[in-house]
Amino acid sequence: MMKSDVTNLSGFIPVRGMRDFLPNEARRIRHVEELSRKLARLYLYDEVITPILESHELLAAKAGEEIRHRMYTFWDLGGREVALRPEFTPSIARLVATKMKTYPKPMRLFCVGSLYRYDEPQYGRYREFWQANYELIGSSRPEADAETLMLTNDLIQQLGLRNYWLKIGHVGILRGVMSQEGVDEQKQSRIMQLLDKKEWDTALKLIKEIGVSAQCVKTLEEIFALKGQDAFQVLERVRKNLKDYDTAIAATNNLREIIELIKKGGASFDMSIEPGFARGLEYYTGLIFEPYISGMDIALGGGGRYDRLIELFGGEPTPAVGVALGIDRLALAAKEQKIRHKAAIQRRVLIIPIRDELSSEAVGLSLRLRREGISAEVEVMGRTVSRALQDADRRQVTHVVILGPDELKEEMVVLRDMKNRKQKTVKMEQLSEAILKDAH
Amino acid sequence: MMKSDVTNLSGFIPVRGMRDFLPNEARRIRHVEELSRKLARLYLYDEVITPILESHELLAAKAGEEIRHRMYTFWDLGGREVALRPEFTPSIARLVATKMKTYPKPMRLFCVGSLYRYDEPQYGRYREFWQANYELIGSSRPEADAETLMLTNDLIQQLGLRNYWLKIGHVGILRGVMSQEGVDEQKQSRIMQLLDKKEWDTALKLIKEIGVSAQCVKTLEEIFALKGQDAFQVLERVRKNLKDYDTAIAATNNLREIIELIKKGGASFDMSIEPGFARGLEYYTGLIFEPYISGMDIALGGGGRYDRLIELFGGEPTPAVGVALGIDRLALAAKEQKIRHKAAIQRRVLIIPIRDELSSEAVGLSLRLRREGISAEVEVMGRTVSRALQDADRRQVTHVVILGPDELKEEMVVLRDMKNRKQKTVKMEQLSEAILKDAH
Repeated sequence: MMKSDVTNLSGFIPVRGMRDFLPNEARRIRHVEELSRKLARLYLYDEVITPILESHELLAAKAGEEIRHRMYTFWDLGGREVALRPEFTPSIARLVATKMKTYPKPMRLFCVGSLYRYDEPQYGRYREFWQANYELIGSSRPEADAETLMLTNDLIQQLGLRNYWLKIGHVGILRGVMSQEGVDEQKQSRIMQLLDKKEWDTALKLIKEIGVSAQCVKTLEEIFALKGQDAFQVLERVRKNLKDYDTAIAATNNLREIIELIKKGGASFDMSIEPGFARGLEYYTGLIFEPYISGMDIALGGGGRYDRLIELFGGEPTPAVGVALGIDRLALAAKEQKIRHKAAIQRRVLIIPIRDELSSEAVGLSLRLRREGISAEVEVMGRTVSRALQDADRRQVTHVVILGPDELKEEMVVLRDMKNRKQKTVKMEQLSEAILKDAH
Repeated sequence: MMKSDVTNLSGFIPVRGMRDFLPNEARRIRHVEELSRKLARLYLYDEVITPILESHELLAAKAGEEIRHRMYTFWDLGGREVALRPEFTPSIARLVATKMKTYPKPMRLFCVGSLYRYDEPQYGRYREFWQANYELIGSSRPEADAETLMLTNDLIQQLGLRNYWLKIGHVGILRGVMSQEGVDEQKQSRIMQLLDKKEWDTALKLIKEIGVSAQCVKTLEEIFALKGQDAFQVLERVRKNLKDYDTAIAATNNLREIIELIKKGGASFDMSIEPGFARGLEYYTGLIFEPYISGMDIALGGGGRYDRLIELFGGEPTPAVGVALGIDRLALAAKEQKIRHKAAIQRRVLIIPIRDELSSEAVGLSLRLRREGISAEVEVMGRTVSRALQDADRRQVTHVVILGPDELKEEMVVLRDMKNRKQKTVKMEQLSEAILKDAH
């Protein structure tokens, strides 16, 4: 009823960095999301939902420089400075420090949803992306760290991905060495950021400029170079290198304990132990890790321990460890590896009345089939049976039910199996059974 | 590692109009969402995912004045004018007019997610809210309209809500009368907006000012007053009132056909037929409806036919009908009616090793239980058995498994049922069975 302003808007595309997911892609995304929720249930993480729009102050408070500058920030109509969340952690920390303050610890929280960062769009990296986020709050023990690693492994494994590994490090090793050398925390963070970007040379240069001992430079250089699949071997070499950097040694022992729990517990997955590895977010204090898959250069997620974050958000001092897994990245990985998720719909039934007067019978039958759990649609284009049948394959219809007046008089319908092109007359009351027994 | 900038942020609350959903509430939301997806599957609506952030131009193009002024609009870092979607329809219309142009019709699309409107927050109305959206594209037949009504009914019914009804009208009745009187479409829209706000007197005043026939004023007045549960009776009275307003009579017949299909098809729900009812969005062209529940003054959703919208977005002329159901409103309604959704988790197992050295056995057992579909957590606080048990009830733990060195030597564990406080020693290999057979 707006004839006056007919405009051609067919040139519309999503805003740069945003994506549409058509049915096949959306199914993949939802499959990963459902799996992540299933694991939350099995690991007893309770789901919470927080807003996509939060105050800019909250989101900016503890984010690193890099994230802060890439946030979608604006003023709402009430003059509040708000932003689209770039990560879940500030919102979860807010909950734990306020509304959930009295919940018993350990607290296991799960959340899932979209996040927003103004990154340069590229393969696997978009400005709107989805994460499944698990946080275990209240425990400083290695069992907690081990749990996030196993959960990560379970999700990837149950998705059916092959050739994946977890890159594992521990922030306490490098920080321990630097602390003992008197490097202040801000400079440490700066160095960790360089390492995250794999700028080892610049990091080493900066360390030398700060003026640490020659021993320290040598130790750090050696640690940067260490890396391997045999966790205990790598950690043994790290330990030897560390000589008397006690805090760093304690961190190494902590990492060893975590990995021992996993191995003795019987979880098995490939890992790459990289003591010189760092993650972009500043708030990590212990274990850090990222899952990878061969052939894809981006992490499928990331996690670690952040024992001081809740306190920084005004809560009680609370140890915590968590992991965020990229839902759309995992879906992309599954697509790259040509993993077929089990189809959501096994049977699609199309009901065609051969005469208009039988429409309400068709409607009634569709209601009955759905009540028995069978997905059904009624022909709503008013086409003839042959026309509608021509289209049925394209619509992935598995069964067509044809309603004719003669058959209906005897409580019968015609059931056509679209796979073998055979049709037969079936008693109405046996229809569901006949549809369900076909092995589609 | 950010000692320098410890700040107390415990005063943080969600931005005005935004909400947190703690575990109990989040479960309700997800339950409604899952049900909406189950119905999409049964009715064969394919899910698509579109961005929350769209270009302002797209979202503003066909939205009514009211929505346009309440959008969260801003410029992104690349200077694009963007907005948070206030409804799904423009994004779906964009898809249908572009990427999905060649998909076979009828096309049934489902989407679910959050939407944003800068409304005055009040009971059941928030600035971030969730909808399940179903669109049936390509059919102008009453079977299609009937389908959206039945789908709406199925969702509400399967959620277990009582005392609900569908308020049903047809935009073609009033528009038909006004068109025949030569009232232009813009003025018609203005009047429909007044009706949506229940400002009948102002609407009538405006109609009189336009200068229509006395007959028209009388007819409209009568139609505004008509309303009833017996659809055929109300429609008969509407018809009599309409005398020779032919387009309006055709609209009345169309509505009768839709309702006949539903009743003869065997779907049964309360309805209130209100020919003078209008919906806020301008683009409706036929059937319109809203579900209500007694005791709640707000609609639980809304739907209708919009045969010209796709064309207005640059697509081929395409009839369409759809419905959007408010997920958080349905969850609120379920809460108001004290409807218990089936608990997501039936059994929660807590595994406690009585000594630290048995931690990896606890970890291993948790992995095994989860693999068998049993939700399990390992004690990660390092507490004694009695301490951990004290807390187990509060954590809704149903079973505790205690690992001791003596029992483990014989491949046994102690299983404690938290409901009857009884414990027994169980063979490890029979543990899952023992847990699953308890009727929790």
